[in-house]
Amino acid sequence: MESIARQSVKLCPFLNNASSSMQSVKRLQQSNVSAIAKKCPFMGKAMQTAGYASSAAANVAAANARNSESDLRSSDDVQESAFVNHGTREKSFDYDGLFEQQLHDKRTDRSYRFFNNINRLAKEFPLAHRQHEEDKVTVWCSNDYLALSKNQQVVDVMKRTLDKYGAGAGGTRNIAGHNKHALKLEAEIAALHKKEGALVFSSCFVANDAVISLLGQKVKDLVIFSDELNHASMIVGIKHASTTKHIFRHNDLNHLEQMLASYPKSQPKLIAFESVYSMSGSVADLEKICDLADKYGALTFLDEVHAVGLYGPHGAGVAEHCDFEAHRKAGIASTEHSTVMDRIDMITGTLGKSFGTVGGYVAGSVKLIDWLRSYAPGFIFTTSLPPAVMAGAAEAIRFQRSHLDLRQDQQRHTTYVKQGLADLQIPVLPNPSHIVPVLVGNPELARQASEILMDKHRIYVQAINFPTVARGTERLRITPTPGHTNDLSDILLEAVDDVFNTLQLPRVKDWEYQGGLLGVGQPEYVPEPNLWTEQHLSYTNNDLHPNVREPIVDQLEVSSGIKA
Amino acid sequence: MESIARQSVKLCPFLNNASSSMQSVKRLQQSNVSAIAKKCPFMGKAMQTAGYASSAAANVAAANARNSESDLRSSDDVQESAFVNHGTREKSFDYDGLFEQQLHDKRTDRSYRFFNNINRLAKEFPLAHRQHEEDKVTVWCSNDYLALSKNQQVVDVMKRTLDKYGAGAGGTRNIAGHNKHALKLEAEIAALHKKEGALVFSSCFVANDAVISLLGQKVKDLVIFSDELNHASMIVGIKHASTTKHIFRHNDLNHLEQMLASYPKSQPKLIAFESVYSMSGSVADLEKICDLADKYGALTFLDEVHAVGLYGPHGAGVAEHCDFEAHRKAGIASTEHSTVMDRIDMITGTLGKSFGTVGGYVAGSVKLIDWLRSYAPGFIFTTSLPPAVMAGAAEAIRFQRSHLDLRQDQQRHTTYVKQGLADLQIPVLPNPSHIVPVLVGNPELARQASEILMDKHRIYVQAINFPTVARGTERLRITPTPGHTNDLSDILLEAVDDVFNTLQLPRVKDWEYQGGLLGVGQPEYVPEPNLWTEQHLSYTNNDLHPNVREPIVDQLEVSSGIKA
Repeated sequence: MESIARQSVKLCPFLNNASSSMQSVKRLQQSNVSAIAKKCPFMGKAMQTAGYASSAAANVAAANARNSESDLRSSDDVQESAFVNHGTREKSFDYDGLFEQQLHDKRTDRSYRFFNNINRLAKEFPLAHRQHEEDKVTVWCSNDYLALSKNQQVVDVMKRTLDKYGAGAGGTRNIAGHNKHALKLEAEIAALHKKEGALVFSSCFVANDAVISLLGQKVKDLVIFSDELNHASMIVGIKHASTTKHIFRHNDLNHLEQMLASYPKSQPKLIAFESVYSMSGSVADLEKICDLADKYGALTFLDEVHAVGLYGPHGAGVAEHCDFEAHRKAGIASTEHSTVMDRIDMITGTLGKSFGTVGGYVAGSVKLIDWLRSYAPGFIFTTSLPPAVMAGAAEAIRFQRSHLDLRQDQQRHTTYVKQGLADLQIPVLPNPSHIVPVLVGNPELARQASEILMDKHRIYVQAINFPTVARGTERLRITPTPGHTNDLSDILLEAVDDVFNTLQLPRVKDWEYQGGLLGVGQPEYVPEPNLWTEQHLSYTNNDLHPNVREPIVDQLEVSSGIKA
Repeated sequence: MESIARQSVKLCPFLNNASSSMQSVKRLQQSNVSAIAKKCPFMGKAMQTAGYASSAAANVAAANARNSESDLRSSDDVQESAFVNHGTREKSFDYDGLFEQQLHDKRTDRSYRFFNNINRLAKEFPLAHRQHEEDKVTVWCSNDYLALSKNQQVVDVMKRTLDKYGAGAGGTRNIAGHNKHALKLEAEIAALHKKEGALVFSSCFVANDAVISLLGQKVKDLVIFSDELNHASMIVGIKHASTTKHIFRHNDLNHLEQMLASYPKSQPKLIAFESVYSMSGSVADLEKICDLADKYGALTFLDEVHAVGLYGPHGAGVAEHCDFEAHRKAGIASTEHSTVMDRIDMITGTLGKSFGTVGGYVAGSVKLIDWLRSYAPGFIFTTSLPPAVMAGAAEAIRFQRSHLDLRQDQQRHTTYVKQGLADLQIPVLPNPSHIVPVLVGNPELARQASEILMDKHRIYVQAINFPTVARGTERLRITPTPGHTNDLSDILLEAVDDVFNTLQLPRVKDWEYQGGLLGVGQPEYVPEPNLWTEQHLSYTNNDLHPNVREPIVDQLEVSSGIKA
């Protein structure tokens, strides 16, 4: 610390600018460092892009330092300082010019996006119509992984709920927007992940941002360790956490451990990671991360957004899948021994992909959930999801819990597509999951490939470009569902082959020649075994415990507040 | 600037801690200030709660300085630095203890919340049942201001959409989640506010956060001027903007001007404010704020969350209300002369209150909307709202546009309740809007008042405590709707009177005796005239332009991307 201080003094710009004050400063009293720091106009420079007056900088520093809650309703930072008066005959800043320039940048680097008008038809899944109803295409890139958005039970529950309880919740959870639908949904989610409680948010983007940022703001000295491929919502949450972060190489647990080990065990830590990384299909080793968390005293934050519905006997995700047999035998009851899922502190998930509706959630201990419920602005200050959405999501979770066959069909269709692409030498990022990322490696060609599929073959596969994936790794991301039968796959395979011919896109051997990328065309790459084994695929719905068809009792006091 | 620098040097803690380096520092080269500032460990102290090593602090500083997009997908910040190895025999941090302590703090200061289980019944509006279906109460605090969540046309459109397009969108706007429902809804919103385009978000919390934070991160040197009573979502957005902010006293435009005038006109600025402040019912002078924005070259960001549906001839909000006659005569067409609404750069609103469903939006110029669409992570990386929700919201906007009578009934019922409370000497924060904030001034008594209303009178009015309002200003917030007839109001008035007697709550004369608070019991307080005049209330739906019943043409290229 002493050497750091010396080095920093050498760099301090004040000393050069104001050397005349040197003598007087030596008499400076020791005092509260952060209060002093707030008054430093150079510190302000970095904390704000602008930084006009030191009072402004101090204000920003004070705002950043203050905890989020008191920040939300305090009037003591209304400024009283005297402001200099500027003339107003100057020109205004050219806002439109700036927007135009930044849009131009996107067009230039081919990251400007055009959205496709895709109206997915419930009764003709996986078909959708485009602008005109007769213009139909097969959707091969939706995240409606289990096709539950068209499930008749889900739709019927939503319609009944609309009739009885209307279109919207009408308020925040605290003011008229808390109801039996929220209670039931949170009970259903908690039961799925075998946690004490759960909390529903507008989306999992909001859940990830809200949970991680609150932890950073409220747990003093928290250090966050984050996988480099974490989703944007987690990156944003970590940024908003305003605390120390370390980014470890994707799924590199040696790198993670090296970082963890540099802090005392008593220092609060959070390891933030996903189970299935959505754009590559790679999967984290959850058990080893739990071991590291135990060893170094860290909380574990697991995003199962692209895994719920798809892994585990009941669709609770990869954490459940790690102890497939134990959970299959126990059903919705507790397992005899502690499982990987038990060891994860927080699991976040979405209601908008496998669960067919919209919204996000976090599941965890009573204390954690009650704390988030009580402090997270992104939960507190927003309108609840509509009763019909919550009822539909709960029904979807219930339905898929006992329908192992949905997960199995999804896996079988994935395997069929992956095998077919391999036979055609079409490059697919190797992974042990349900994601089929076809490598293109160029933004313009990825866009063209998507367009030919759509216009010539009536197949919709969105090109995935920057910022969703790194530049140079652009891809077509294919997501089979239980509705994407082998007949449809054969049509897809022929179409992709045609597109690769038309655009002369590199096949596996071309990538091999170039040295390979992300496991494609790299002979030394050792593929991981599929998460779904032959054994897992051999079970039927009847092999699940009968209790998975029982309703969940919604006595989740934690959702409403706990009487002391 | 020179005197500020001198003063800051006096406060610099380095100079005391490391005076031996004094000579060498004088030779310091002038160099990039913000790069230098990032290396200062004291600056780091304020920027992070933790601050272990200067490398960590520098990391946080770098993360904060980096723009949001490259932040979202860059692996170059994976750290390679050598980490010290700590022993692992120490104890872990007590996370549960910290959560427990912070929950205990909430219980101690009476800000711990219990949510009421309120199931609003579409066919018995404004009744809701509690846990048991037969246990019914009248809801007097929902934000379903126009009762559109139970509107049969809205519900029917949603049911038809569910049948045809299923429960969920199945993807982000870029990947399979963009559809005709999004296009139509955004066209409807743009037409309502007479803007070139609009963009829908998961909620208005997300919209406010996303828009303001992106402006702060992307418009270099932006200075934000924010009303001190702005909603939590705007405060969070401003915090995430990581730029200079100034908070002006609530609705004090002299204070705002003083702050604006201290910057050159060419400096980019954003004035962030609401039209109707939801917890006090106070209303901003939009025209004067536009004048100031013109004079000082600022963008205007207006949150109309609690005003859409309720003000203006077509329910576009207070901005429309400012030119009531011009808009009434023009209908959905442009007015002959520029209006206050034209002068506002960004208007955000919600679909979850007057528009009966869920979601939020921003309306503005083509360039602004296209820019937000292209850069805002909170828009890009999240699942679209369900087709049925978007279709229902569009229907609600269409319906209310031509139903002036809904707004008028809401106003008449508000006036009836306010007059009744005044006659009973019940203290209500004076305001010119539809909000009826009954002052209690104590968190425990506010909670008890709410409980007695519920248990004895079967009336649900939520107590509003910290952090939603400042401590000491706790209140019961009553929100009449077109469904809250005078008969129901009479029951409410009697009940509130009873509660004030039972708990011996201070009446107007008591507040007067204490010197008054927020306009209550302050004889010198000059009440503002209601926004709705007798003239406005005298029109019928037939006095609106016939074009308000025409469908909006959804050719909003901006929602999908603009071909260059």
